[in-house]
Amino acid sequence: MQQIFDVQTNGPGLYEITDQLRPWARGSGLLTLFIQHTSASLVIQENADPDVQTDLQNYFARLVPPTTDPSMSYLTHVYEGPDDMPAHIKAALLPTHLCIPVTDGRLALGTWQGIYVFEHRDRPHLRHVVAHLG
Amino acid sequence: MQQIFDVQTNGPGLYEITDQLRPWARGSGLLTLFIQHTSASLVIQENADPDVQTDLQNYFARLVPPTTDPSMSYLTHVYEGPDDMPAHIKAALLPTHLCIPVTDGRLALGTWQGIYVFEHRDRPHLRHVVAHLG
Amino acid sequence: MQQIFDVQTNGPGLYEITDQLRPWARGSGLLTLFIQHTSASLVIQENADPDVQTDLQNYFARLVPPTTDPSMSYLTHVYEGPDDMPAHIKAALLPTHLCIPVTDGRLALGTWQGIYVFEHRDRPHLRHVVAHLG
Repeated sequence: MQQIFDVQTNGPGLYEITDQLRPWARGSGLLTLFIQHTSASLVIQENADPDVQTDLQNYFARLVPPTTDPSMSYLTHVYEGPDDMPAHIKAALLPTHLCIPVTDGRLALGTWQGIYVFEHRDRPHLRHVVAHLG
Repeated sequence: MQQIFDVQTNGPGLYEITDQLRPWARGSGLLTLFIQHTSASLVIQENADPDVQTDLQNYFARLVPPTTDPSMSYLTHVYEGPDDMPAHIKAALLPTHLCIPVTDGRLALGTWQGIYVFEHRDRPHLRHVVAHLG
Repeated sequence: MQQIFDVQTNGPGLYEITDQLRPWARGSGLLTLFIQHTSASLVIQENADPDVQTDLQNYFARLVPPTTDPSMSYLTHVYEGPDDMPAHIKAALLPTHLCIPVTDGRLALGTWQGIYVFEHRDRPHLRHVVAHLG
């Protein structure tokens, strides 16, 4: 069983999609999520304190600064702006797919785990996430 | 077929779980492991020389230092101590789940590959790993 | 259905394997790829501009420099040369496995997504990738 979820983003950061996925998980099996992009990621992170999401975004903005930062001057793929190649690097460092066991119709997430699209580009994007239940 | 494995940790580092999983893998299929936490990870790494595990831990301790380090002063989620938010960041950088093919009742691991829980918190924790064989 | 693909590498960098995998994907399901090594990775990245691959390799070479770099002098697993332990660290930071949904006999990749073996060692290696279609 497969379905594509569209997620509208509006700048860098984490966008929670857990609630969209919950009703879709049925029976017992494995839910796989796959994002069809190389400048956005899927992550599982704490959903209790929103500061965690801000801190994560700020950490990755420092680990992979925009190409306007002198430390990144060696990068060559800069056609689409200073957030272009750093977005690809973040997409290598963070997951393109997630697998989550489904138990008796429930996602087997831990108490504090939420599922997020992590957007790495500055401009708004419509992101496609393929969900596969097997 | 699903089962939850409990793994007791005692401070940061890698805890091998390969041998616990071996007898559980049957037939041919895919074993998925999912850790129900946002401050610990699952990794596949070399199991021959224990120095690899120490080096890995030391690398990540430098890549994501505790919030007592001046370079991390921008982090705000610090309620549970200086290892709190760095643990979440490491959990974003490292896998929350693993998938390992099973062939004729054997995990299809390479010669030197072992499966580990990577603990990121200072205090002891009981970690839950969901195993799904499909 | 399982098969092992061999991929010959010749130094650090990305080696595309998308076209080798395409004919193997049939029906609808989930393709899992698993690399049986702890010093090479599997990544999904942009396949339009080859500069992206060069930039990725250069970024990771800076994030995890060889042990000849003074900043890495704390590493102890150095038996096989200055690229040995950094390769293990990169293999922790980047995926050991990928899952890609298959829809009507086609890999459900985004327009610009390609599948790559990311080699972290300096010398040539024959890498084994287990493919599982389920």
